[in-house]
Amino acid sequence: MSIGDTEDPAIESLGDTGLLLSVASATAIRNANLGLDAIGLRARTFSILELVVRTGGVNQRSLADKLRLNPSQIVALVDTLVADGLVERRLDDEDRRARLVCPTEEGERQWATARELADRALEHTLRALSPPERAYLHQLLSVVVNASEPD
Amino acid sequence: MSIGDTEDPAIESLGDTGLLLSVASATAIRNANLGLDAIGLRARTFSILELVVRTGGVNQRSLADKLRLNPSQIVALVDTLVADGLVERRLDDEDRRARLVCPTEEGERQWATARELADRALEHTLRALSPPERAYLHQLLSVVVNASEPD
Repeated sequence: MSIGDTEDPAIESLGDTGLLLSVASATAIRNANLGLDAIGLRARTFSILELVVRTGGVNQRSLADKLRLNPSQIVALVDTLVADGLVERRLDDEDRRARLVCPTEEGERQWATARELADRALEHTLRALSPPERAYLHQLLSVVVNASEPD
Repeated sequence: MSIGDTEDPAIESLGDTGLLLSVASATAIRNANLGLDAIGLRARTFSILELVVRTGGVNQRSLADKLRLNPSQIVALVDTLVADGLVERRLDDEDRRARLVCPTEEGERQWATARELADRALEHTLRALSPPERAYLHQLLSVVVNASEPD
C-alpha cells in the first residue's frame, strides 16, 4: 500500500496522530507478545531485558525514565525477570546506595533468541512499509521520544 | 531538532522501532491525560467519544476493532461515558439485535472542548517535528494501522 491511501473507512475516522500512535503501538505489542510467547516472554519484559543486555547493567530509575513507565511497574517487571533467572540485582560499584540490574548468562542467551522473535514480529507489524519508509518512521519516532520528558 | 540527531545516549539504546512506538505512544497518552484532566476525561475515554461523535453512532464491536482494544475494555469505557451522560446505547434500526453507542448533546459539546485540549496536548508531544514531518508521521502510522488485523 502506498503512502496516502486510506482504504479502510473505519480508520479514516482515526484522525488524530496520537490515536494512530496508540493503535500502532497496540498492534506492535500484540504481535511481539504473540512471537515472544514461544519462550515465555512478553513485549514489556523483553524491552527491559533488551536494555539490561545492551547496557550491561542499568539502575531501575534509569529503566523507568527510558521506557516512560512508573518505577513500580519497573520493579514488578524486573522481579519477573529475576524469578526467571534472566537478570539479577547487584550493588553498583560507583554508587553503593544504588543497585544495578544486570543480565545473567542465561539472560544473554535468552535475549538473542528473543531478539530474533521480536524482529520477526516487527517485520510483520511494518510489512506495509518499504525499507526507506521504515527507516524514516524510526527517525521521526526517535525525535518525538527524545523531545519528551521522563515522568 | 533535525531528523537523525539522537542526543540522548539513553534513547540510542531504544533500537527497536516497536519499542519507540510504545514509548512515543505512552508519551502522547500521558500528555493527553494531563490536558483532558481539566474536564474529567482520559485519553482512552476521549478516543471512544471521538469515534462516537464522528460516526454519529457505532456499535461496540466496531469500536473494539478500530481501537484494537478488547470488547470488555470497550464495555467498561462506554459504561464510564454513559455514567457521565456523554453517550447512550440505542437500538440499531438496521439490526434489532445490536445496540449503537450514540453521542448525547452534552457529549457533542464536551467533545468540542476535549478536541481542543487533545490537539494542544498532541502539539506538545510532536513539537520537535516540523509540519511536513508531522504529516508524514501521520501517513506512515495510517499505513501500519490499516495493514494490521483486528483481534
